[in-house]
Amino acid sequence: MAKVLTSRAENYAQWYNDLVIKADLAENSAVRGCMVIKPYGYAIWEKMQRALDDMFKETGHQNAYFPLFIPKSFFSKEAAHVEGFAKECAVVTHYRLMNDPDGKGVVVDPDAKLEEELIVRPTSETIIWNTYRNWIQSYRDLPIKINQWANVVRWEMRTRLFLRTAEFLWQEGHTAHATKQEALEETETMLKVYAKFAEEWMAMPVVQGYKTESERFAGALETMTIEALMQDGKALQSGTSHFLGQNFAKAFDVTFTNQEGKIESVWATSWGVSTRLMGALVMSHSDDNGLVLPPKLAPIQVVIVPIYKKLEELDQINGVADKIVAELKQLGISVKYDNDDKRKPGWKFAEYELKGVPLRLAIGPRDLQNGTCELARRDTLTKEIVPLEGIGSKAVSLLADIQSNIFKKALDFREANTTVVDDYEEFKKLLDDKGGFFLCHWDGSAETEERVKNETKATIRCIPLEGPTEPGKCMVTGKPSARRVLFARSY
Amino acid sequence: MAKVLTSRAENYAQWYNDLVIKADLAENSAVRGCMVIKPYGYAIWEKMQRALDDMFKETGHQNAYFPLFIPKSFFSKEAAHVEGFAKECAVVTHYRLMNDPDGKGVVVDPDAKLEEELIVRPTSETIIWNTYRNWIQSYRDLPIKINQWANVVRWEMRTRLFLRTAEFLWQEGHTAHATKQEALEETETMLKVYAKFAEEWMAMPVVQGYKTESERFAGALETMTIEALMQDGKALQSGTSHFLGQNFAKAFDVTFTNQEGKIESVWATSWGVSTRLMGALVMSHSDDNGLVLPPKLAPIQVVIVPIYKKLEELDQINGVADKIVAELKQLGISVKYDNDDKRKPGWKFAEYELKGVPLRLAIGPRDLQNGTCELARRDTLTKEIVPLEGIGSKAVSLLADIQSNIFKKALDFREANTTVVDDYEEFKKLLDDKGGFFLCHWDGSAETEERVKNETKATIRCIPLEGPTEPGKCMVTGKPSARRVLFARSY
Repeated sequence: MAKVLTSRAENYAQWYNDLVIKADLAENSAVRGCMVIKPYGYAIWEKMQRALDDMFKETGHQNAYFPLFIPKSFFSKEAAHVEGFAKECAVVTHYRLMNDPDGKGVVVDPDAKLEEELIVRPTSETIIWNTYRNWIQSYRDLPIKINQWANVVRWEMRTRLFLRTAEFLWQEGHTAHATKQEALEETETMLKVYAKFAEEWMAMPVVQGYKTESERFAGALETMTIEALMQDGKALQSGTSHFLGQNFAKAFDVTFTNQEGKIESVWATSWGVSTRLMGALVMSHSDDNGLVLPPKLAPIQVVIVPIYKKLEELDQINGVADKIVAELKQLGISVKYDNDDKRKPGWKFAEYELKGVPLRLAIGPRDLQNGTCELARRDTLTKEIVPLEGIGSKAVSLLADIQSNIFKKALDFREANTTVVDDYEEFKKLLDDKGGFFLCHWDGSAETEERVKNETKATIRCIPLEGPTEPGKCMVTGKPSARRVLFARSY
Repeated sequence: MAKVLTSRAENYAQWYNDLVIKADLAENSAVRGCMVIKPYGYAIWEKMQRALDDMFKETGHQNAYFPLFIPKSFFSKEAAHVEGFAKECAVVTHYRLMNDPDGKGVVVDPDAKLEEELIVRPTSETIIWNTYRNWIQSYRDLPIKINQWANVVRWEMRTRLFLRTAEFLWQEGHTAHATKQEALEETETMLKVYAKFAEEWMAMPVVQGYKTESERFAGALETMTIEALMQDGKALQSGTSHFLGQNFAKAFDVTFTNQEGKIESVWATSWGVSTRLMGALVMSHSDDNGLVLPPKLAPIQVVIVPIYKKLEELDQINGVADKIVAELKQLGISVKYDNDDKRKPGWKFAEYELKGVPLRLAIGPRDLQNGTCELARRDTLTKEIVPLEGIGSKAVSLLADIQSNIFKKALDFREANTTVVDDYEEFKKLLDDKGGFFLCHWDGSAETEERVKNETKATIRCIPLEGPTEPGKCMVTGKPSARRVLFARSY
């Protein structure tokens, strides 16, 4: 069978795009920059949502829903926020269409112009803090820990499926606290939740850290981030958690009476991950044959394919397969038995490889005689003949093994592609030759950061929470550096 | 304690609005016609979503996601659809803001005008069928059975929380079939799913039936509906399922090659329920003390309140309550123990009554001695002293009893308020005096339907699938009628 994907070595960007489309994850829509998330892709996103939502609730958050539209004037209230956000966005100016008086079709009714334009939310801090004003009077009303699952729109000029789209799906947490300390703790707690999700569910190792001032969210005092390394040596920012200080509370006049009876401004955080994680998932593990999905997020964890020549053989296999399906379902495994007679086994093998199904179980006439089946792992592409007796517990343990193996593989890759560099020329050379993460000394100035960015397209992904902490000299200017930071080119 | 709600008898509309706000379900936002769904309200909606989503998947549907925006020209492609839908909607005309050159704040950048305006989806048939065109070539690609959970916008002039809002949350199913028969069956299957959900989860009896031609969805050949009766005697359309024929396939050129190798247009259905169901839930069961929630949808099914004077007593009660909480959780019951010392028991009793918690369990010092507690039912407002021994199974059986009791109460109410009438004058009188559902003969003409609507504000809610089927004479014109239909004033 012809390869359906461009290889990674040939053209990584093309491989990614081919894979997202061929594996039925998503496609471009008729609306510029907006994607259609197809059922198979959406099933993965639903699994992500469920896992994250459970973690949010375990950490004391509740879901709610705020309006899609934000009055234009709200964006002007927080100075940094308007600079960072309000520019490239979808603007609603009218609320009615009418039949075209000059012909067929419909046109915008000029009489139905809004007094104040509405912005389709690019993020919801402004409308939410405007709402919180009425919810918060006393310290007894705090904390408020709310999350929202929603669609947002940012008018991106160059879009790529999942990685950068005009509309995307995400969750945004917005919390309100009585003290700075509590808000800082919340910021960190949620970053840890994201890191745990990335590593334990997506099998994607991440570096946790603080963004530099220039890379912070518009309106934040601190932005924390998880950064993952993709197979092409570029970083992908996978989730951010922001300490917003009292900026939004002051902009929207949200105050409370503290325990001593004094009026204070409320402390805020916000944090989010989006369908961008789908892109990160694809680029972390997949290969030239297709997707490689971590079992915990795979819509189909085990596929069973019958191998037969005569329909009587299929009948016999059906009987055995039905029992296996029942046994696996009993164990909480999501399983599909594909006995569609219109497709050959070879086609099915390629299809489920492309779709990243972690385990494939094939049964032929000889297996029936021997009480065996062939088990193939998607991650290693290895096969073994195993007895049908005990297939359930075998599948459970293999799925766990695949989950940890692909995490380990990604971690090994990251370690092999994280370089400690002290010389700027060497940094530039290695950035081109090898890519990956670089741990380098930096003098802490925005000027140096900007210079590196302009000269190399690499940015400071974060000031890591862990890793080498010895002081040194900036690789660019030679000035003192408190500790190494993480540089990389990024998505 | 002062009553926090206007009574139903005094002003039903005000009672509803008070209740939605006081019970923390939702509130109006700063954006005209858009609501904020608060955590308690959203928790109920999440339970609805989960139950419906499971039912959709059991009937073979998958979730996906399509763009928020629809190009204006798409609405002109299906003639009936544009008439019914495209007029009152949010229109995006620009994609950028800029700093106001004359002052502070931001203004719309006149240079960033879209070539073609985008409509914020009021419903997604057009964008979805435009997408299906590329997904469907052969009968092998059919059926496609997709559902989407999404927000939609219809620019309503008069809005009411949950019942009619500019933006609302919903699900919309969009299926594609090779035959008319299969599409008709799908239309009916999904109506049955809605009816089952309404009756078994919301405890809300519904009349299933067909809409008359004038009440059909814009672009549908048949619209099926479930109609519920609210406590003020008005009907609330709670879910609709549409047989769209080949209209959208023809408008968007979606054809397939059938088994005989001939090219045909695809058959379509669509179906949806929305956050309007929240309004239906409130108005079906609640009373002048607050919400009455069916246990299956209650975010908190059991609340435990300690009654004490001294803190030592509270300590003792805490120990007992912790065991009860563990026992109830073990049984899958959602339970809250409210030992907040800042609030008195009386305040808590009123609060959880207002919030509609189905079961309240109170424990005082005497209960500790006797090994008992006081159990109070929200639906009947009755109390009994029961032994703590076996409290888990007692709670399980009471919750089931409450679920069936409030369904029965609503069904009794509907039966008492469904009137068979043959005389138009009597109909008009009873409509004003009593309200409710009316089963009347109708001659089948749009003229008569329109006349009744204009003269009485009552509409034909549906031609029921069940109920009296004897022919007769139209109550208005005396012309022959095939069967009685359901009239009511409605939300």
